[in-house]
Amino acid sequence: MENKSKAIALVSGGMDSLITLAIALEQYRTALLHFLYRQRTEERELRAFHEIADYYSIDERLVSRIETLHQIGGSSLTDGAIPVADADIGSQDIPTSYVSFRNAHFLTGAVSWAEVNGVSVIFVGAVEEDSSGYPDCRREFYDAFERLIETGTKPDTKIKIITPIIHMKKKDIILKGVELGAPLHLTWSCYRRSDKACGTCESCVLRLRAFKAAGIPDPIEYEMKV
Amino acid sequence: MENKSKAIALVSGGMDSLITLAIALEQYRTALLHFLYRQRTEERELRAFHEIADYYSIDERLVSRIETLHQIGGSSLTDGAIPVADADIGSQDIPTSYVSFRNAHFLTGAVSWAEVNGVSVIFVGAVEEDSSGYPDCRREFYDAFERLIETGTKPDTKIKIITPIIHMKKKDIILKGVELGAPLHLTWSCYRRSDKACGTCESCVLRLRAFKAAGIPDPIEYEMKV
Repeated sequence: MENKSKAIALVSGGMDSLITLAIALEQYRTALLHFLYRQRTEERELRAFHEIADYYSIDERLVSRIETLHQIGGSSLTDGAIPVADADIGSQDIPTSYVSFRNAHFLTGAVSWAEVNGVSVIFVGAVEEDSSGYPDCRREFYDAFERLIETGTKPDTKIKIITPIIHMKKKDIILKGVELGAPLHLTWSCYRRSDKACGTCESCVLRLRAFKAAGIPDPIEYEMKV
Repeated sequence: MENKSKAIALVSGGMDSLITLAIALEQYRTALLHFLYRQRTEERELRAFHEIADYYSIDERLVSRIETLHQIGGSSLTDGAIPVADADIGSQDIPTSYVSFRNAHFLTGAVSWAEVNGVSVIFVGAVEEDSSGYPDCRREFYDAFERLIETGTKPDTKIKIITPIIHMKKKDIILKGVELGAPLHLTWSCYRRSDKACGTCESCVLRLRAFKAAGIPDPIEYEMKV
């Protein structure tokens, strides 16, 4: 175990980053990074983060707050004046839940943490096709980010961004999680609520659809019968 | 005045970003963005920021805190355990004042602010050759960042990063500031102190050397006769 090299994983508390972490842990000692940005379900996501970290007995965790995204607003997740919409699966538009350049904020923090600690691998649970269509979930964004790291850090700093599930279907991500024994019951995906998942926001609908396709019951509780 | 299009300028309170702002204001209505990151002279820099904004009668200001850089440490500016070194001009090493990937943090916030508000130009006062040698002050870093913006924001978002003084000598930057009537007396550069500038840290030495080369007295007060 101690001979494994070290990685950082961005862990939101949702399913995709959990399964990405489970994949990372097969090869790396992994430190966990979580961001609070005054999103609606901030406390619930933080609880999921810590429960996942506890499950894997990972002590090395950094929880950090990004004020900027809330100050700026413009997203239904961070701006109380914009309601969280019901899912509109199949729409080509970028949904109102889009938080501008969010993954750049998260990755930038991960790169600073990695550089200061000599870590050369960052895991991110982005999903490109079978997801909400956020631009910062596409592999070309991570390729561009790797180039940014090359140009913007010390000459001897080498950091790769690994996105192991980026081209997977949500259903297959769940099956991979089951295969790896990932604690899916500890994850939180709902954009709206923190007690029981609403079942109708985009994140809930994508999740429920994926569990259905995988033929596995979703272990978390929903407000309505799903 | 009202017909000018809008830009965002990152304004630290130092000389380079002031003169960059003065250049921006010739063509743009400019909103100002300042970051606090628990650097040693945070309060003094914030005062400089507001005095500069007041000088130009700019109301649109966003001051935002980045906790991550202080939590991570690893720089003499953000980590109380690492002393601020005296200047070592001419050294090829990246100095201990290097804050890992700092300009990526600042720019990421600027991009989110720009995207949410439909602004397509961001001004940054980076200086490449005649400076401390921070990797994130090189134009190739900003080119890579523009590519990142293309890949990580909405399809109709177009944001350019303008670095008007990046290839200028510090001396010429000062002369440009004088030409534009920029309030150099309101700026703060010292890494160590917030009352009188120390005169011996890298930032003070680069500044003093530039004023000397420009043949102009530095209008701020120093701890020692300079």
